[in-house]
Amino acid sequence: MVHGFFITFEGGEGAGKSTQIERLASKMRAKKYDVLVTREPGGSPGAEAVRHVLLSGAAEPFGPRMEALLFAAARSDHVEQVIRPAVERGSIVLCDRFMDSSRVYQGVTGGLDPAFMGALEKVAINGMVPDMTLIFDIDPAEGLRRATARRGTDAGADRFEKETLDIHQRRREAFLAIAAAEPERCIVVDASADPDTVENVVTAAVFAALETMTPAHRKQASPG
Amino acid sequence: MVHGFFITFEGGEGAGKSTQIERLASKMRAKKYDVLVTREPGGSPGAEAVRHVLLSGAAEPFGPRMEALLFAAARSDHVEQVIRPAVERGSIVLCDRFMDSSRVYQGVTGGLDPAFMGALEKVAINGMVPDMTLIFDIDPAEGLRRATARRGTDAGADRFEKETLDIHQRRREAFLAIAAAEPERCIVVDASADPDTVENVVTAAVFAALETMTPAHRKQASPG
Repeated sequence: MVHGFFITFEGGEGAGKSTQIERLASKMRAKKYDVLVTREPGGSPGAEAVRHVLLSGAAEPFGPRMEALLFAAARSDHVEQVIRPAVERGSIVLCDRFMDSSRVYQGVTGGLDPAFMGALEKVAINGMVPDMTLIFDIDPAEGLRRATARRGTDAGADRFEKETLDIHQRRREAFLAIAAAEPERCIVVDASADPDTVENVVTAAVFAALETMTPAHRKQASPG
Repeated sequence: MVHGFFITFEGGEGAGKSTQIERLASKMRAKKYDVLVTREPGGSPGAEAVRHVLLSGAAEPFGPRMEALLFAAARSDHVEQVIRPAVERGSIVLCDRFMDSSRVYQGVTGGLDPAFMGALEKVAINGMVPDMTLIFDIDPAEGLRRATARRGTDAGADRFEKETLDIHQRRREAFLAIAAAEPERCIVVDASADPDTVENVVTAAVFAALETMTPAHRKQASPG
């Protein structure tokens, strides 16, 4: 069976993930790779319905456990409706946030039981572990400054951006701990560098990994 | 540690669970038992927020998997916020629908993978298996007739009541199969009998089980 490649992008606010995902997708498409860009929370109709509830803070009064469960519900829908079918037809899937964000946001700084979080992750991803995870690392003060600048004055911060710098610092450390624990899956990217430098690092890492894959990822000239 | 008793009531539509739960609760309170009556989906603020989404059918377009995940999210909140604290302080908890309804409605007639449903149940209940489950058994045609009569002409049927008789029949068989597989937990109650007869059967079964418990369930005369 043809098997694609599943890459996730993780890290704190303002690390430049979205920009880099778009640049990488363009480069891959220019090389005739079949690329799907998606994001969490959301990425499928069912998950997008849950996304608004989560980012608006409507679920916050019910505590981090309920939030973790809703993130898992959205993730499961996203995996089964979008990610797995794409990977199984041979696409490269680039996903902005995935299971590591839940480990960090609900697990570490949400204070939920690791055994519960582990069981929930297993149910949500149902075997769909990323082939590669790029962890965008940046000083949280700089990341939040960038996120604010990006929004300008009109759009409001979401509920995660509003939290204290100390919490963002703990998240940074938690992402780095995941990278240290799973070096075969995770690559830490210094996101404080200028965007062109970050792009070069990301491109080099991803294309090196893809070269070990089969040519099935490359689009076939279609007669249709 | 004081440990209460957790009883769930399961079965199809119109089987008379709510009526019997109220009657049993009154009898128990008359005997000075500390009783908490609750129901699913719902039973805690977070779970009630999810309940409306589920019963209105708003999650239906996203398929049975998303529904199962939302039921699990609601159940987890209900367990941790309401059921477990009550049982740990020694109360008798009477719950209208619980994990067996998910097994039957999303698992059997929703066609979801049993391994997925089993993992999801484990996450949702987190060890909170009922001490006793009363399965109210009734011919689905009779149950639906009763449910319609109970609503009168004003209130609409919820999305589960609207399904075909064949589906309701498969659910009846699935509930009976659970009872056969877990006889130490489940008791099948013939819900086609008149309410007083059903009440006598339920009362006898529950009080027989409670007599084996410690006197911790009985309310202490409080000085307050």
